Amino acid sequence: MGKKFMFRVPEGEEIVEFLTRFLVSQDIRAGIILGVGSLEDPEVGYFDREKKEYITKTLKGTYELVTLIGNVSIKNGKPFLHVHVSLGDREGKLYGGHLIRAKVFVAEIFIEELDEKLERRKFGSLYLWDPINLDSGS
Amino acid sequence: MGKKFMFRVPEGEEIVEFLTRFLVSQDIRAGIILGVGSLEDPEVGYFDREKKEYITKTLKGTYELVTLIGNVSIKNGKPFLHVHVSLGDREGKLYGGHLIRAKVFVAEIFIEELDEKLERRKFGSLYLWDPINLDSGS
Amino acid sequence: MGKKFMFRVPEGEEIVEFLTRFLVSQDIRAGIILGVGSLEDPEVGYFDREKKEYITKTLKGTYELVTLIGNVSIKNGKPFLHVHVSLGDREGKLYGGHLIRAKVFVAEIFIEELDEKLERRKFGSLYLWDPINLDSGS
Repeated sequence: MGKKFMFRVPEGEEIVEFLTRFLVSQDIRAGIILGVGSLEDPEVGYFDREKKEYITKTLKGTYELVTLIGNVSIKNGKPFLHVHVSLGDREGKLYGGHLIRAKVFVAEIFIEELDEKLERRKFGSLYLWDPINLDSGS
Repeated sequence: MGKKFMFRVPEGEEIVEFLTRFLVSQDIRAGIILGVGSLEDPEVGYFDREKKEYITKTLKGTYELVTLIGNVSIKNGKPFLHVHVSLGDREGKLYGGHLIRAKVFVAEIFIEELDEKLERRKFGSLYLWDPINLDSGS
Repeated sequence: MGKKFMFRVPEGEEIVEFLTRFLVSQDIRAGIILGVGSLEDPEVGYFDREKKEYITKTLKGTYELVTLIGNVSIKNGKPFLHVHVSLGDREGKLYGGHLIRAKVFVAEIFIEELDEKLERRKFGSLYLWDPINLDSGS
């Protein structure tokens, strides 16, 4: 419990698939994740509340990975990564959203395992945790 | 000391008010905070050094909460949250600044309590901690 | 091992130089770093894979430091900071990339020391860690 990891993802890997494989290999079922680096052809999503689905966009080329922030919890019994990214182009302009996939050029990643039991279940069309209830202290 | 929390803020809550209420309920007086999600009508600020005040802007609609980063310390004797956010629109363009308020659609939050005594006091028109002094080792 | 720090960098300091001095003073050889604040005349870089060098850009004026995320490891025997930033202008538009230098107006920084041995060595024209090898479990 509470293990911490810092590592570089090998160049050429698909980042979401690789990190999920890392979580499974280490049996991490809850945690936080942070990272910086540079990604190729990242695909990001924006959740459209009316259409109840992600609108996705692929940014062609290589972008600075300015932020990668997310968490690990359980979905359908398995470790699941929820990650958002911001991405910088050569002019320094930023783009981003929900990370769907990207090819790694450089990715320096920190993961901290947490002692939480958080499981995603379906709320409408999103998989979410039960919300916290401040009044009951849970 | 050193408690860690990961939770989802209920939909519809005003995020700054809700998180401050969480800090008080848990008696967290110093810490860091990270988050991702989706916010409605976020209001962000830019501190204008000449006017010595925040210029604020409300972004109408729902935005991906690409990053929420901030800290907890004491201001006027009470836990105080200082948070900056970046926000993505449906085109994947990013906006952001100092978070003033926003309505939660989804907010997945991590808070780590720290064993620090940091109190904000007035420096000009901002409430800040005393700066660190590297030479004295403090 | 595992020390945590939260502090404000004094106004007017060059942030990368100051934080590196902090790392040396505390003998921190691996870690993560997070921050928010406001920076003056930040210079950011985008790594051009064809030219194999950073394209740099100085943003004139004061910007909200919306995110500072990075890590600490060893390069040439000394603690080395690798940091990316996103920066907001008065319209709330964001810019960013690899942080080269910036003058501090306000910088509230969190550093957590990690028990890792990560050393940068030259891969092409970048100083990187050896990539993790999932199959060997390392």
